[in-house]
Amino acid sequence: MTVEEFFELSAGKWFSHRTSHHLAFKQAEDGKSEINIETLPADHPEVIKLCQQYEVDPSTATCGARVTWNGTMEWDEEKHEGSTVLVTVPDQDSPDEGKLLREMGYAEKAPVAGRYKIGTDGALTLTTEYETMWSEERLWFASPNLRMRVSVLKRFGGFSMASFTSEIRMGGAPAKAAEAANSVNTPSG
Amino acid sequence: MTVEEFFELSAGKWFSHRTSHHLAFKQAEDGKSEINIETLPADHPEVIKLCQQYEVDPSTATCGARVTWNGTMEWDEEKHEGSTVLVTVPDQDSPDEGKLLREMGYAEKAPVAGRYKIGTDGALTLTTEYETMWSEERLWFASPNLRMRVSVLKRFGGFSMASFTSEIRMGGAPAKAAEAANSVNTPSG
Repeated sequence: MTVEEFFELSAGKWFSHRTSHHLAFKQAEDGKSEINIETLPADHPEVIKLCQQYEVDPSTATCGARVTWNGTMEWDEEKHEGSTVLVTVPDQDSPDEGKLLREMGYAEKAPVAGRYKIGTDGALTLTTEYETMWSEERLWFASPNLRMRVSVLKRFGGFSMASFTSEIRMGGAPAKAAEAANSVNTPSG
Repeated sequence: MTVEEFFELSAGKWFSHRTSHHLAFKQAEDGKSEINIETLPADHPEVIKLCQQYEVDPSTATCGARVTWNGTMEWDEEKHEGSTVLVTVPDQDSPDEGKLLREMGYAEKAPVAGRYKIGTDGALTLTTEYETMWSEERLWFASPNLRMRVSVLKRFGGFSMASFTSEIRMGGAPAKAAEAANSVNTPSG
């Protein structure tokens, strides 16, 4: 799988269920949201704009996505709404890894460029370094209708959080909505 | 990493925190337990006994482990205690994968042989087929003191559950207990 194929397969509406394990407290926190992922062509105005913010030549971008979310976390019971744009800029010598530009990092409200790498097993790994934090997220498809994500967060050199997200496709391509809603069945069974 | 090295690194006492996502209900269930993992040499009497139960030549087994757990799950509030023995029997042509014998499957109370495969990324994947179920578990080390597991369970062709387990070493080799307890720091962290 290429990173472009991974983005294509991610397009659509998902029910996203995240559980964070706060390692020092041995406590879990649950969050649920609806996520909408829309792929953007490499020449889309928002892709070009983001490249320019990072001072990256827009012609080197290969794909983009707009991710919109709407949900709640258990502990603060606040509504979390937001959206971001992601853009992949492969390394010159290796199309399977490169820079990942994003409008806004999950944990900090300033633009942060991370790295992506798509493995031979089809899993996508994203790493981001912030000033005092480091995060790594692995995303993969158990089936076209079930996407999974595991992330770890390091603060000041020690792991502080591990999160797991299961995401069920709510309808649209590539599988029929009814199947996805009932039992996360896939065409391949 | 070889499967033998994976078992060695797993040896010790772990605080294990599991969250299961019941996909059809969109509900999470939390469970916490202490797990003790002890490696067994390939010529240990319990390894030989398990091979004989599966009618496998004991000289083909490469390593074994006894896993003991003691914990509670949220929904039934019962104490879950138990132990099992695991034995790896590599395929003749490939030492990185083979049969995984176990005294007792997680979900069924009869002996079930599964498959193991250690990937080039050091992750261990275990698959088990039951009569009406199929499960796959991926285990890996975020650090020598933080082990992670993700499993999916299929019933009658559809995914029914996804589980995430973070496991923090409680002491013993290879890292000092105090470090593990405080912040899951690692020597390299």
